[in-house]
Amino acid sequence: MTQDHIVLSPYEMPDRWYNILPDLPRPLPPPMDPKSGPSRMEMLPQVFSGKVLEHEMCTDRYVKIPKEVRELYIQAGRPRPLIRARRLEKKLNTPAKMYYKAEFYSPTGSHKVNTAIPQAYFAKQQGLERMTTETGAGQWGTALAYACSLVGIDITVYWVRAASSWKLGRRNFMQMYGAEVYDSPSDRTEIGQRLLQEDPNHEGSLGIAISEALEDAVSDEKAVYSLGSVLNHVLLHQTIIGLETKKQFEIAEDHPDIVISCLGGGSNFGGLAIPFAGDMINNGNDTKFIAAQSEAAPNLNGTYEYDFGDYAEQTPLLKMYTLGHQCVMPSIKADGLRYHGAAPIISALRNEGLVDTIIYPRDEEYVFKRAEMFVQREGFLPAPESAYSIAAAIDEARGCRDRNEEKTIVFNVSGHGFMDMDGYRDILGLGQSNSSAST
Amino acid sequence: MTQDHIVLSPYEMPDRWYNILPDLPRPLPPPMDPKSGPSRMEMLPQVFSGKVLEHEMCTDRYVKIPKEVRELYIQAGRPRPLIRARRLEKKLNTPAKMYYKAEFYSPTGSHKVNTAIPQAYFAKQQGLERMTTETGAGQWGTALAYACSLVGIDITVYWVRAASSWKLGRRNFMQMYGAEVYDSPSDRTEIGQRLLQEDPNHEGSLGIAISEALEDAVSDEKAVYSLGSVLNHVLLHQTIIGLETKKQFEIAEDHPDIVISCLGGGSNFGGLAIPFAGDMINNGNDTKFIAAQSEAAPNLNGTYEYDFGDYAEQTPLLKMYTLGHQCVMPSIKADGLRYHGAAPIISALRNEGLVDTIIYPRDEEYVFKRAEMFVQREGFLPAPESAYSIAAAIDEARGCRDRNEEKTIVFNVSGHGFMDMDGYRDILGLGQSNSSAST
Repeated sequence: MTQDHIVLSPYEMPDRWYNILPDLPRPLPPPMDPKSGPSRMEMLPQVFSGKVLEHEMCTDRYVKIPKEVRELYIQAGRPRPLIRARRLEKKLNTPAKMYYKAEFYSPTGSHKVNTAIPQAYFAKQQGLERMTTETGAGQWGTALAYACSLVGIDITVYWVRAASSWKLGRRNFMQMYGAEVYDSPSDRTEIGQRLLQEDPNHEGSLGIAISEALEDAVSDEKAVYSLGSVLNHVLLHQTIIGLETKKQFEIAEDHPDIVISCLGGGSNFGGLAIPFAGDMINNGNDTKFIAAQSEAAPNLNGTYEYDFGDYAEQTPLLKMYTLGHQCVMPSIKADGLRYHGAAPIISALRNEGLVDTIIYPRDEEYVFKRAEMFVQREGFLPAPESAYSIAAAIDEARGCRDRNEEKTIVFNVSGHGFMDMDGYRDILGLGQSNSSAST
Repeated sequence: MTQDHIVLSPYEMPDRWYNILPDLPRPLPPPMDPKSGPSRMEMLPQVFSGKVLEHEMCTDRYVKIPKEVRELYIQAGRPRPLIRARRLEKKLNTPAKMYYKAEFYSPTGSHKVNTAIPQAYFAKQQGLERMTTETGAGQWGTALAYACSLVGIDITVYWVRAASSWKLGRRNFMQMYGAEVYDSPSDRTEIGQRLLQEDPNHEGSLGIAISEALEDAVSDEKAVYSLGSVLNHVLLHQTIIGLETKKQFEIAEDHPDIVISCLGGGSNFGGLAIPFAGDMINNGNDTKFIAAQSEAAPNLNGTYEYDFGDYAEQTPLLKMYTLGHQCVMPSIKADGLRYHGAAPIISALRNEGLVDTIIYPRDEEYVFKRAEMFVQREGFLPAPESAYSIAAAIDEARGCRDRNEEKTIVFNVSGHGFMDMDGYRDILGLGQSNSSAST
């Protein structure tokens, strides 16, 4: 059993991030300015800290993790375990070996701390006084609030109303870290005011919240904007997940045939997958990568083209698989998966035919039922977003059973669901009063 | 920093529990039958599994942890880190060294899994089909639901209404594990029916919920009762906390002068303190033990006498510091501290003058403000009960500052507060809508 629970000591934590850019089969299409309007590219230095921009454009294969950031990673509980899902395998009667990365062992609840920590650290180093950001499910906002609290810098969070309206606990958690939290669209920005005039109860979207956070940051020279997904530097920082996992597979003397995680913008999927994808490109081993998505936002099945990262067209154009930066996506419990585009790096891998996708119905019962099976077998309560990763792993393991294939599957459980129980209650019909569970 | 985050590998986890009974200065006063009524002692074999009764009466200094239980401990994330509270020390400007045990890294949210796992395992081994229990804050009910789910046995939980009424998320979490959850007093037992007749909205108490769970178990020969605190076997299983912590202090080449935790029935306090208390008794080193309690239930300042463990007088009499088994305790957010008596072992240590206590006001703002300071400095959200442990550690560290004493303090953060945010919101006045936190 101990070898089913593969832990690294803090001393064994990787000391550098992996950058796949130099290893991509074709150069990554660069961000661009749109034909009309002011230059978004020239705006970037006002928006991001210098170090973050450097990481965004970096072409080195490896980037050293600063000592102070490594120390904060350890404070946040890194390295995290890789766990063999022995009970789940038995329940599924599958010959497949299933491993999951325990990113849910996080002070704020998810993998988002992996980039929140360096971004807050770099902003503080640069003498900035405030960070602005958006959040969808609330996990990113909490992670950045945590990081800002630890390094000592203020933070303003714009939260997509579709999620903030039913996640009061997570709002208060951000507030305990000292964060200012505003429902988005808000009346604090021009874009927010315009949308609220159209609809006072506007549900918002990640794209809109990004627009508000950007507008706020640009109007305050002591503030810097921070993004929790999509961009190269975010995925760079998140590779700590996959780099640890690779070390853990070496200890387990195994190697994944199938790498799975859920994908909204791509930060947790990329964090796990990119180091293994680099291996596949460089060593030509045959690994399958599967991104689990919702019918509500199947961006990897969108068109591969240059599009804006936000609703109000304030960002440069990014080459990505996109549903269109102003498309309206239905509200789901796994709000963290609700974004119109996939990270340029993931999109490039997708375009090379290296990333598959599985789309789950907007009715989330199918997915949450599998999360419930995971809870009862492995004992950990996943975030609604992570439930998609679990569902895809279970479906792959069942496929292995039907084809009698002894594959090794690794999937990321990117966050815990302790603060998202309302979502499970609504979809699984859990009891409000004296009643037994559906068993 | 790495040496500030002291982790043990699964291979380094202690393989035996420590039993302080043979090391107590005086023999522990045994449980007794009351003068009148049926024999409660003779009822015990119907109520507890054989192995649990054996552990309850055991006089061996060490008890081997079965291999299967060790494996489940590892699945539950043991061993858990011991963390130097470097940021908190700096904020307090104290010469004291502060360490906290991270029991909040728990699949269900608290240290309660440490005894839930062996109790569920032993019941399953004995061929029993169902466990019944009570829960106060909800942490114990969740922990036993988790353990029962992993070993494959049914569970019925009676939940003190004072807490269940505002913790819907935790109820649903138990239900996801397959647990049947009933508000206590319930209409499923005679004692519950009687109390509901007196008051249909009866807030309940841990003592009442124990009575209901006992009545349920006694009436079903395939069911066994399980207690989450107070008794010897529970504290025996919980010593895994202190045994790990001792190993971690050896690695840190340090030794605690002050051992602190919150105390309701005594399971988390005992789990951390007992191995250090045994050391003090055997080696005569000078260690201070402080139990943090609420004015709502200051049982360690009660009278040291034989009393019932439950409201309806179904348990044997236990020699303990007690407020009286039918005393009415005001409702607080830290409901897990709301019990009328302290564990016989802790009471005996208290009677020897080895355990001090600090009582915090029923208005929990003083305590929760210190929890907020811990959140902003260390980044972890504690359970409301654990906030008392944190408050006591902070107050001791401030005392060290005022007296310029370089003491080493260790305190247990027994659980996380992700599912208890409503409690913090009410007491700290956190925002419901667009508003900034009190910083």
